[in-house]
Amino acid sequence: MQRYFVPEEGWQENMVRIIGDDRHHIDRVMRMQSGDSIICNAPEGRAAVCTINDVTDQYISATIDEWLDEMKELPVEVTIAHGLPKGDKLELVLQKGTELGAASFIPFQAGRSIVKWDQKKAEKKLSRYRKIVKEASEQSHRTVVPEVEGFLDFESLLKKSEDYPVKIFAYEDEAKTNDFHGLSGILSNVESGQKIIACIGPEGGYTIEEAEALKAHGFEPVRLGPRILRTETAPLYLLASISYHFEELGC
Amino acid sequence: MQRYFVPEEGWQENMVRIIGDDRHHIDRVMRMQSGDSIICNAPEGRAAVCTINDVTDQYISATIDEWLDEMKELPVEVTIAHGLPKGDKLELVLQKGTELGAASFIPFQAGRSIVKWDQKKAEKKLSRYRKIVKEASEQSHRTVVPEVEGFLDFESLLKKSEDYPVKIFAYEDEAKTNDFHGLSGILSNVESGQKIIACIGPEGGYTIEEAEALKAHGFEPVRLGPRILRTETAPLYLLASISYHFEELGC
Repeated sequence: MQRYFVPEEGWQENMVRIIGDDRHHIDRVMRMQSGDSIICNAPEGRAAVCTINDVTDQYISATIDEWLDEMKELPVEVTIAHGLPKGDKLELVLQKGTELGAASFIPFQAGRSIVKWDQKKAEKKLSRYRKIVKEASEQSHRTVVPEVEGFLDFESLLKKSEDYPVKIFAYEDEAKTNDFHGLSGILSNVESGQKIIACIGPEGGYTIEEAEALKAHGFEPVRLGPRILRTETAPLYLLASISYHFEELGC
Repeated sequence: MQRYFVPEEGWQENMVRIIGDDRHHIDRVMRMQSGDSIICNAPEGRAAVCTINDVTDQYISATIDEWLDEMKELPVEVTIAHGLPKGDKLELVLQKGTELGAASFIPFQAGRSIVKWDQKKAEKKLSRYRKIVKEASEQSHRTVVPEVEGFLDFESLLKKSEDYPVKIFAYEDEAKTNDFHGLSGILSNVESGQKIIACIGPEGGYTIEEAEALKAHGFEPVRLGPRILRTETAPLYLLASISYHFEELGC
């Protein structure tokens, strides 16, 4: 069943009112009509099966039939802080990272980021990024849409990380030694509901100064398997492993 | 250190001779010279640190300094059989799947594959796919290059699967129930060195007939977390989980 995230103002007691892009999608792309069923997600994470009862050019209204009892979200909240990579790699990370259950994303300017964040285009970019995670959430049947936070410099990222009890960073040098820090050991000590921030370097990895600063701020270096992953593959490995650990192994 | 896969005929007793694209890459892209070090991988999986001693327009020769003792390969051999997806998604799966440790890939024609395999372009396509996995192997420091097998129809895939003691398929319907088959339970019974074939459906998943035929041929349905993954994300989740299970958790 097709799923739509409906903002707070769209919800009434037993009705939902859908406008904008989603109205267009239901009417013109899916060609749905009165009597068809959709799933509507409310901002706080709940979802309901609804029946469309009115399709107009301004809005679509639907009746709430049944609230769903779903467990689609990772039991831990994972934030991916990604050193700005080249090209459209960040968009791949946002789409796939959302499918894999990330709670939020923070792009940051790393020393070795080849691309520089253009503040003039920031609003347009962030709005595009938020569209990608919203669509990926709907497609993967998630019950909340991940946050895409505004772009940070490295110092602000370190400051921001103080909000997180668990801090890790993927560090290529750890993968080259036999005496590596274990991701599994760290995950085994994480409790349900806890917040994890995972820092991923850009192409070329962290500078030595960044790696030292991350360690000094309580980030634990982890390897993500013994092979060297591209910058955009690292967060996908991490999120899949966290899902496997908590949702499949049930550790 | 830059890594190159050198075919059998390039190896002499204590020397390596590199030709073709790799010669060009070392000379023109990396601009390496006599005295520079590279890692050369031999076809059977071993790798050696070598020092370049001659750069010519026809070949590059290097002396073998030291054979490396590496554990870069997954302890189980995973074959990803992927129902032909749209666009360049298969290329993404080949590149990322190689980074994540797959042993081989088999594209096959699924009932819901929108794209049809074009036999006239087969040779060119396969050669492109093999270039992608070779480059991804080098980049991720693997010691073997995964196989990309020729395109199969569904019947031939079922026949081929008889070579594999462990057979699984990602089945979306499993993710919608609470009584799902556990990937972790299956992996816990796999022994080091065993061969696993994992079958991934195209966009839209398997037809009911395909799912039944897979089950009848001993494929176990698994879910890959509770969220619905896109066709190209499913093999990445699976490979990351297998790596995490065997290489990080050490199960």
